[in-house]
Amino acid sequence: MLRQASTTLPIRTSRPGLHEFTDSVRQFVAESGIREGLLTLFCRHTSASLLIQENAAPAARRDLEAYFERIAPEGGPYEHDDEGPDDMPAHLRSALTRTQVSIPVQYGAPVLGTWQGIFLFEHRRNTPQRRIALHLIGE
Amino acid sequence: MLRQASTTLPIRTSRPGLHEFTDSVRQFVAESGIREGLLTLFCRHTSASLLIQENAAPAARRDLEAYFERIAPEGGPYEHDDEGPDDMPAHLRSALTRTQVSIPVQYGAPVLGTWQGIFLFEHRRNTPQRRIALHLIGE
Amino acid sequence: MLRQASTTLPIRTSRPGLHEFTDSVRQFVAESGIREGLLTLFCRHTSASLLIQENAAPAARRDLEAYFERIAPEGGPYEHDDEGPDDMPAHLRSALTRTQVSIPVQYGAPVLGTWQGIFLFEHRRNTPQRRIALHLIGE
Repeated sequence: MLRQASTTLPIRTSRPGLHEFTDSVRQFVAESGIREGLLTLFCRHTSASLLIQENAAPAARRDLEAYFERIAPEGGPYEHDDEGPDDMPAHLRSALTRTQVSIPVQYGAPVLGTWQGIFLFEHRRNTPQRRIALHLIGE
Repeated sequence: MLRQASTTLPIRTSRPGLHEFTDSVRQFVAESGIREGLLTLFCRHTSASLLIQENAAPAARRDLEAYFERIAPEGGPYEHDDEGPDDMPAHLRSALTRTQVSIPVQYGAPVLGTWQGIFLFEHRRNTPQRRIALHLIGE
Repeated sequence: MLRQASTTLPIRTSRPGLHEFTDSVRQFVAESGIREGLLTLFCRHTSASLLIQENAAPAARRDLEAYFERIAPEGGPYEHDDEGPDDMPAHLRSALTRTQVSIPVQYGAPVLGTWQGIFLFEHRRNTPQRRIALHLIGE
């Protein structure tokens, strides 16, 4: 019978950039007992975001981080800087990536491809604790 | 028992840029009577988009608008301009932001963070009426 | 009664760029017999992505492709190039577009707007077969 499961995943990082948390997500799905369904991850912040990306090559991760630093740089012509020079770039990099990702679940696991990992993309230097809301519906 | 609710939200704006409609979304969820579930917003257009962003600082909103005007400018080397100079930039800015956003619902409300608002990002100058499809599943 | 349907859509393309597969998606929804619900498409790759865009004007499609070639170019200052010069740009263009799209379903069809088509955005020159996971829940 169709049912739901929900939780909030707290994530604490020590530096800006991409932080993989695929294992925590897999564990939530496994423990729910739901075998087929739809999993949704929602980032409850506007200065951090989500990304599903290459999880094997650390160089790819560094290139991704450097790329977003180039296209949404600190020191741009911004009016808003209430929380410092990394405030507005954080909002822009969030707008360019994801606030939410949904992934179908089959055989009790998200159907990620071989090289896909789930990442929190932290855009602030003074990294606060982040909360990712997880929702799963299925049976 | 799990059930669904759907509606279409018409949005009329008077200028390009970010227009918050969080309250209309909250009202739809509240009136559905569904307390826990998954809410999906879908923008039925290719020249307007969705964004969840900072809802407190008007300067952050202006910076976001100015940023997308810079990275997907009018007057670029575009072939397509059937509907004028803001036609192709509108498609590009839509491609860079969101056509759809899903948000888990708990205690009868979307689990938005403290500073998160839901925005229609209008990319055309002659702003037509926009239709956002809303879907909610839960119990 | 609410139920689910799932499948994997294999897509083979012969060149990089935007490839519409709206018809295959409509067919999956129609054959499921589900009339109202939520459809989710998930791209199981990090060097190809999804986009809902203008499906009428081929020039708009070419402009979109050219735009992403400009803002995430080959030959950038990348460290990662394990699979050649189009490797890292593929990850960047995927990060800027969509890994997943969800679309409400009404009257047995996704509620796409008149000009919206569903596209696979292939970012590699040597185009491998791609797999898009489809999930539908509804009744």
